[in-house]
Amino acid sequence: MAVQIPRGTQDILPGTSEKWQYVENRMRDLCRAFNYSEIRTPIFEQTELFQRSVGDTTDIVQKEMYTFEDKGGRSMTLRPEGTASVVRSYVENKRFGLPDQPDKLYYIGPMFRYERPQSGRMRQFVQFGVEAIGSDDPSIDAEVIALAMELYSSLGLKGLKLVINSLGDKESRENHKQALISHFKPSIDEFCSDCQERLEKNPLRILDCKKDKDHPLMETAPSILDYLNEDSRRYFEKVQAFLSQMDISFEIDPGLVRGLDYYNNTAFEIMIEGEGFGAITTLTGGGRYNGLTEELGGPEAPGIGFALSIERLLMALSAQNVELPVEKGLDCYVVTMGEKAETEAVSILWDLRRKGLRVEKDYMQKKIKAQFKAADRMNAAYTVVIGEDELQSGEVSIKKMSDGSQEKTAIADLAAYLTDKTGRE
Amino acid sequence: MAVQIPRGTQDILPGTSEKWQYVENRMRDLCRAFNYSEIRTPIFEQTELFQRSVGDTTDIVQKEMYTFEDKGGRSMTLRPEGTASVVRSYVENKRFGLPDQPDKLYYIGPMFRYERPQSGRMRQFVQFGVEAIGSDDPSIDAEVIALAMELYSSLGLKGLKLVINSLGDKESRENHKQALISHFKPSIDEFCSDCQERLEKNPLRILDCKKDKDHPLMETAPSILDYLNEDSRRYFEKVQAFLSQMDISFEIDPGLVRGLDYYNNTAFEIMIEGEGFGAITTLTGGGRYNGLTEELGGPEAPGIGFALSIERLLMALSAQNVELPVEKGLDCYVVTMGEKAETEAVSILWDLRRKGLRVEKDYMQKKIKAQFKAADRMNAAYTVVIGEDELQSGEVSIKKMSDGSQEKTAIADLAAYLTDKTGRE
Repeated sequence: MAVQIPRGTQDILPGTSEKWQYVENRMRDLCRAFNYSEIRTPIFEQTELFQRSVGDTTDIVQKEMYTFEDKGGRSMTLRPEGTASVVRSYVENKRFGLPDQPDKLYYIGPMFRYERPQSGRMRQFVQFGVEAIGSDDPSIDAEVIALAMELYSSLGLKGLKLVINSLGDKESRENHKQALISHFKPSIDEFCSDCQERLEKNPLRILDCKKDKDHPLMETAPSILDYLNEDSRRYFEKVQAFLSQMDISFEIDPGLVRGLDYYNNTAFEIMIEGEGFGAITTLTGGGRYNGLTEELGGPEAPGIGFALSIERLLMALSAQNVELPVEKGLDCYVVTMGEKAETEAVSILWDLRRKGLRVEKDYMQKKIKAQFKAADRMNAAYTVVIGEDELQSGEVSIKKMSDGSQEKTAIADLAAYLTDKTGRE
Repeated sequence: MAVQIPRGTQDILPGTSEKWQYVENRMRDLCRAFNYSEIRTPIFEQTELFQRSVGDTTDIVQKEMYTFEDKGGRSMTLRPEGTASVVRSYVENKRFGLPDQPDKLYYIGPMFRYERPQSGRMRQFVQFGVEAIGSDDPSIDAEVIALAMELYSSLGLKGLKLVINSLGDKESRENHKQALISHFKPSIDEFCSDCQERLEKNPLRILDCKKDKDHPLMETAPSILDYLNEDSRRYFEKVQAFLSQMDISFEIDPGLVRGLDYYNNTAFEIMIEGEGFGAITTLTGGGRYNGLTEELGGPEAPGIGFALSIERLLMALSAQNVELPVEKGLDCYVVTMGEKAETEAVSILWDLRRKGLRVEKDYMQKKIKAQFKAADRMNAAYTVVIGEDELQSGEVSIKKMSDGSQEKTAIADLAAYLTDKTGRE
């Protein structure tokens, strides 16, 4: 019996992995331009980290975490998201002491949530995330949002829609919280048990409930925007002004509430309009998380960030038939005839490959005709035949596969010929 | 109290992550040239996979795995190595049916072993590995070895030593096994309990024991090379001939035994000579694993591969003072004076960054002098000051930081000026 892949996980195979490489390179290039540097944190963390940051009342912490005891008896959890680890690292490595704040960081890596697997929702999925920690200048909020937008649009996605909201600062949130409690309390029995539990602890999250989303009280719930104090309102206006300065259009949705406990002030989501996505319309979300560094034992350092699923990005690209310009095919396939040629081919390939040329040969004792077929399948730009005659004369014919034309060159000049023709350096 | 990083894991921070990116790009480029494609398998697998492939008697399976039950009650294990998963995927996705064999694959990703953390040995570490499955042509053995050698030497490492051995085919191994049992059995009481257990099951692994490595019987143990049958000897000779064909020098060490159960025929290690490494002298190892596909429920498909730790590679580069050519510094820092300039700067940066220029500004309300200091710290090639005057005239002075020289240009031409000067596209 064969051992199978765990449910809710996938193998990314050749043919697909090149697309992953392409979009990840796009992310790295974009982060370079925006001056964000890569951070890599461990795959698992102490469970307490997520309890304290993501929040005890969230579905993630309550239901979806891969938690286990290590051999030393410590409770560890496969990271369900990236922000907690980045902030943990910012605090632990005292990056708040660096002269250049905010600390502008990004990550690309697998995350884990034990959910019912469905299209676009895997138990292991890969997130690209950006965090800027240590500044509460509204221009950094606009920058982070702009980076996310630029990623999608530069990859060729159409119909993007940016939705923003403000969740307010502590004071605004507290006033809004009281209003929400007054609003829901009289009818809380009509809501799910999760919502009932949330009422006193975190009523904002009721607005985010999937089960009760059609309850009439949802529509009429007090809007945070009516409870923003002067500071929060002015902050939100500046973020909007900076977005407009970049000609990035947006909608304001006072119902936009992020699913994690640690957000405040700016919140945003990028949706994609158009058909072919099924339930998947939100590509990414993020927001400001002032207070999270203190929650994790560090000094005050206001932060903002977003995270997006690469699986979902690739689904959107595929649904819009965006063809990524990934490289396909060999520079040259070396066809061999006879044992001596096979041996010589080894050093010829060695030379070509070390010069960066993508070259292949046969390893299956195939006949010549089958070797040419393989060259075709592998989209070889050129083929070279090496046999007794060629070894004796030191010359080979190079066949251009697209038109069948042939040219002769010395074996010693093969690398120079192919480098010139294929434009490799 | 701050939450800390799990013991034996590390954060890879800016300043170091660029080196990781550089060596990983080298790996990807090299694999492209050698025509290996990337595969990405899940971080965890069913525990049975490693029991069946890595082997029940190995330290890895017996002592070092991160095994846990998922919420569905299935035993899962964070992958301790990469080959098992790649072969599982080859079988599960029926890649043996693809017309082009061998299936040439590579991976880069984290692996997990619960060991005592020490220099160069982390509980989470990153492996780069290559697997070619579906051919037993000795030229593919030589190719895999050559790829590993080329990675190290092209990165600038000196004093590399390639050691090879043959572990023989099934028949040769069986004959050698009987000879080993006869050799060790009379004195097995003098060996550690692990070795005693290994004697009947897998006596070859006694040669790999760290505790008993100085026992006199180790030195005089029968060499596998004296037990190779005709096929195995000829295979080994061909591998050597192909290596010589590429001018790759090597030593034969009949004592070279790989720590995992699944190896046969070709085995190799690449060591590095020279000081500054402490106990770390082996950079990578690999070998042939005919029979592993069958072990995992697939058809016969002989394979060969290697895996190396990127942490160890970076330690070797650092010990030899190899300076990787990683990019440092900004293309331009935009200094702002006044609120209007701050707003304008947002769209100027937006324009420059979208053209691929690496540009930064202030987010901390710094005075001009402090902004220039930041530009210095960030190794900005150029700075531009934007204030009332510049906004009125539409012209800015661009200061070249290396010599202090200045030139004027229209704000609208800034991107073109910087693109030209910095050579970005």
